[in-house]
Amino acid sequence: MRFISETSSDGVRERIFHLGEVPGVLWTADGAAGTRPLVLIGHGGGRHKRAPGPLALARRFVTECDYAVVAVDAPGHGDRPRHVEYDRLATENQARAEAGEELGPLIAGFHALVARQTVPEWRAALDAVQALPYVGPGPVGYWGVSLGCGLGVPFVAAEPRVRAAVLGLGGASASAEVASRITVPVEFLLQWDDERVPRAAGLALFDALASARKTLHANPGKHGDLPATELDSSVRFFTRHLN
Amino acid sequence: MRFISETSSDGVRERIFHLGEVPGVLWTADGAAGTRPLVLIGHGGGRHKRAPGPLALARRFVTECDYAVVAVDAPGHGDRPRHVEYDRLATENQARAEAGEELGPLIAGFHALVARQTVPEWRAALDAVQALPYVGPGPVGYWGVSLGCGLGVPFVAAEPRVRAAVLGLGGASASAEVASRITVPVEFLLQWDDERVPRAAGLALFDALASARKTLHANPGKHGDLPATELDSSVRFFTRHLN
Repeated sequence: MRFISETSSDGVRERIFHLGEVPGVLWTADGAAGTRPLVLIGHGGGRHKRAPGPLALARRFVTECDYAVVAVDAPGHGDRPRHVEYDRLATENQARAEAGEELGPLIAGFHALVARQTVPEWRAALDAVQALPYVGPGPVGYWGVSLGCGLGVPFVAAEPRVRAAVLGLGGASASAEVASRITVPVEFLLQWDDERVPRAAGLALFDALASARKTLHANPGKHGDLPATELDSSVRFFTRHLN
Repeated sequence: MRFISETSSDGVRERIFHLGEVPGVLWTADGAAGTRPLVLIGHGGGRHKRAPGPLALARRFVTECDYAVVAVDAPGHGDRPRHVEYDRLATENQARAEAGEELGPLIAGFHALVARQTVPEWRAALDAVQALPYVGPGPVGYWGVSLGCGLGVPFVAAEPRVRAAVLGLGGASASAEVASRITVPVEFLLQWDDERVPRAAGLALFDALASARKTLHANPGKHGDLPATELDSSVRFFTRHLN
């Protein structure tokens, strides 16, 4: 783990790091010392580890909960080079969708493929970050919607350190079997008029989660219209399950 | 409006009243003076105005929000005499369901019939309670699930004083058209494994609400298993919309 830069604003310290070839960012309170809960945020498709959404959410987890928060760039995103094979597959899927094939299963298959790479990358990020004395081996939460859900479902299913997860804006297609291995509390976000994820696919993914404590929050609006009240709810959700 | 009794415990004053033939209960903080938000709670089927659920919720609205809360017995419930015609219809519906008819539309039709009586009764209760100097003409909220949803949907659609409503554990059947006249913010509660309301009927009722700000909260469990966290959420919901 190699630290690239360290800055601070309004009480939140931000450290950019590289872990092998994976660029990441770690947020903690200024002067944080000792073990604390850690939330891993998975960014959306075409976004990156410091996109406005993850950044705003990370600042809230730090300032309101005193958590550590970590995010890394997904392959082909942010500060990582384009990924030739994934680009080729994405183009191919686009062509197949234009030729009339159903988009949902194509996207789900693509996410499952990428997750084979990101699950070990994210586990390595947890290892590295939790080895720092101001993060430590506390409870872990995961927050990710859209691409962050497609990659998050296999991650949460595979990683026993994750004690609670916010997921959503994703559909069942290829991930229902994986979702059925998730047993930790989940808050699942669904946009009622999602133009990218069919409503039935989102409901089916919520249904597939094996968690005894799971809650579905559905709101009107399109894929990108997640209401701000849901971020308030995410903060409360982790406060209930990680503290 | 005739007051029958007045008691107080732990800072919450409870007044039992009769309004014509309708028995009701009003909760306020001890020493409440001046106008405040008012929540009307609609109780469930076979329950009554002071059942444990409404009572606990009313106490929270009073102690945490300083609201006034009112509940009245539905026809044939609590301190009201049995209602011969409704009893006859309920028995008839039961027989039709046992003979194979779908229960949902029968229940919905029954609720629509009863609502013709309860909507004016509840509006009269608002009139009477808001005429009291320690309640006054503040914003009004409605909370009701199950029977409280079946009767609540027509009430919320008809009563412009209601600014926000928590509804749920009810299905679309006969009320979708009425629901499409509701435009105030709604928090809609659905039990994912509801043995009385088919999941699709609950989702259809949420879908039918015309409110731009509506949110669906779905949780695992049966009709009676509403998690306590949803009551916390109801308190926050009214705090956002009535304060």
